[in-house]
Parts: sequence; structure tokens; C-alpha cells
Amino acid sequence: MKPDIEKLSSQSEAMPCITPECFRDSMASLAGAVNIVTTSSATGDVGFTATAVCSVSDNPATLLVCLNRSASVHSAFVDSPYLAINTLTEGHESLSNVFGGKAAMADRFAIGKWERLKTGSPVLADAAVAFDCKITHIQSVATHDVIFCEVVAVKQREQAGALVYFQRGYHHLCD
Amino acid sequence: MKPDIEKLSSQSEAMPCITPECFRDSMASLAGAVNIVTTSSATGDVGFTATAVCSVSDNPATLLVCLNRSASVHSAFVDSPYLAINTLTEGHESLSNVFGGKAAMADRFAIGKWERLKTGSPVLADAAVAFDCKITHIQSVATHDVIFCEVVAVKQREQAGALVYFQRGYHHLCD
Repeated sequence: MKPDIEKLSSQSEAMPCITPECFRDSMASLAGAVNIVTTSSATGDVGFTATAVCSVSDNPATLLVCLNRSASVHSAFVDSPYLAINTLTEGHESLSNVFGGKAAMADRFAIGKWERLKTGSPVLADAAVAFDCKITHIQSVATHDVIFCEVVAVKQREQAGALVYFQRGYHHLCD
Repeated sequence: MKPDIEKLSSQSEAMPCITPECFRDSMASLAGAVNIVTTSSATGDVGFTATAVCSVSDNPATLLVCLNRSASVHSAFVDSPYLAINTLTEGHESLSNVFGGKAAMADRFAIGKWERLKTGSPVLADAAVAFDCKITHIQSVATHDVIFCEVVAVKQREQAGALVYFQRGYHHLCD
């Protein structure tokens, strides 16, 4: 059903349409750091690519991750007390594509070097920064679960750039 | 009080410290698009600079904004039914600095050209993209309120780049 949006006739650029397609087109203009979010489940390591990651508070150090409830990895994350957020940098494009696609979990983790910090969640050895977290709260909003998590360990790489997704493509930022 | 973090002796880069200072140092590695979040209050227009903005769902189109409960603008936003998220682009650095500083609200909005879409919240005429939203839910997490909002109108600029904050400085991405 089309939303009840008034026609803004004086502003020709205004988009009266906020269908999912229009929203995704608009969101392409909001640049986002690319991350791989992981956890260790009873059936093995699980991970997916996400730009919907956001800092919440520095005290206690808290981040959030948005995850579609229809995603195949959803149950692994909501059943786990822990997760890790691995922020990617230049050279991680294929890793991002594999974790954002349909590959089996074992094939995803066959790429890259993975280690553990405190919680046991997989941490990418050469991530720009990795946040090892315990999940504190999950809030359902529309199609997604917003997973709030408190950081219990951090590993940061010196002088790493950033891998950013913008206008449906990868961009690099140098430190 | 120092968190109870194990020393990860085999990983020299690991940071056992997750004090607020350490967390902010780590967060400098997570690139974020720069936005000005605005609303129209009983005492006039109010706005602040934020990188803690995140897409939540495309159906209904939903975003979130994190706002410190101790911020001077906090009450204006939690008392308002609406807000707008204005995503910045190259040339908006001073605007970002002014809205991220201590300037009076009238002085902030004296810079840039502002208009209204549907909700009455100030929309920056040359934003890369502006999301005009109604607030649907506010969740308190640690020091911050997470404001969830549903998009009721969008205005997108053609071929605008992105203004990104990374390692405590501004960076540009071209479309």
C-alpha cells in the first residue's frame, strides 16, 4: 500500500515515495563502514557482512548491530550471549562479498585468518578494529532485531584505513 | 573501575582496556557518515551533528539516531514527534563543526539554506539526502537514548558525494 505522503509540488526533488525500493535508493547516499559480525554457535562459527553497526555509548562501551529476522544467521545470533564486530579495511572486499552472500559458513571462515579474544567469537586477525562483545539487549523494530552489545575486549590495528560502502560500491579511506 | 578483562598475552595488539577513552580511540577506526539531525521545537529549530545514525529496516523505512541524554538538545528531541536526518557532503565541514559545537541554535541555522518537507523539521536544501521522519520509539541504553524513526519524506540530491568522519578528521567520497 502506498504511504500517505503529500505531494510537495514546490520542491521538485522531493520524493513522495518511500517504498522499500525508494528507501534503499536513498540509503545508498549514506556511507557506511563495512563490518563482519560473527559469533560462535553450537554448530560452528557464524558471520555476516553489515554496515548497520553504530556506536551507542562509551560508558559502558556499547555498540549496536541491526539484523534482519529473516536472515539465515538470525537464530545463531539471538541464541548466543556474545558476538564480535570486525571492521574491515582495504583488501577485504572479497571477504565482505563472501560474508554478504550465500556461501556456507565453513567456506566463509576458510578465507582470512581468524582468532579469539575473550568471548570466543571469531575475530579477524587483520581487521582495522575488532570489538569483542557480550549481548545485553535485543530490540525488535519492524523487520529487524537491533542487537545491543557491550564491548569486553578490543583489538585495533595500527594505521589501518577504512572500507566504506557508498552508492552501492566500495570506497577506501586512508588513515 | 577497571573492567575485568583478561590479559591476552599472545596478542600484543589486543587492548585489555575498554575505558571510555580506549573505546573512543577504537571507534575512531569505524568510519561514519556525518549528519545533522534537526527538529522543530516550541522554542525554535534545534539541531546537532551526529555520526551515530543507522538504517534499521526498509519496510517500513526506519532509521535510528543515538543521542546522549545529557546533551543540551536532548529534551527538544524526546519531546518532539518528528525529526529530520540531513546527510552531509563535501563543503559542509563548517556546518558540521557549528552544529557539533556550542553555538546558539539561531546561529547554527543562520548557516546554510533550510526548508521543510512534511513534518516541519528543518531540512538542509543541499544535503546529499534528507530523511524527514516521525519518531516511533525511544530506547534508553547506557548514557544514550536510541531514537527510532519512520521516514515519511525523502529529498535526495543527484550526484552528491559523502562527508565521512574517520580517525578524527573529515574525508570525502565521490559519487
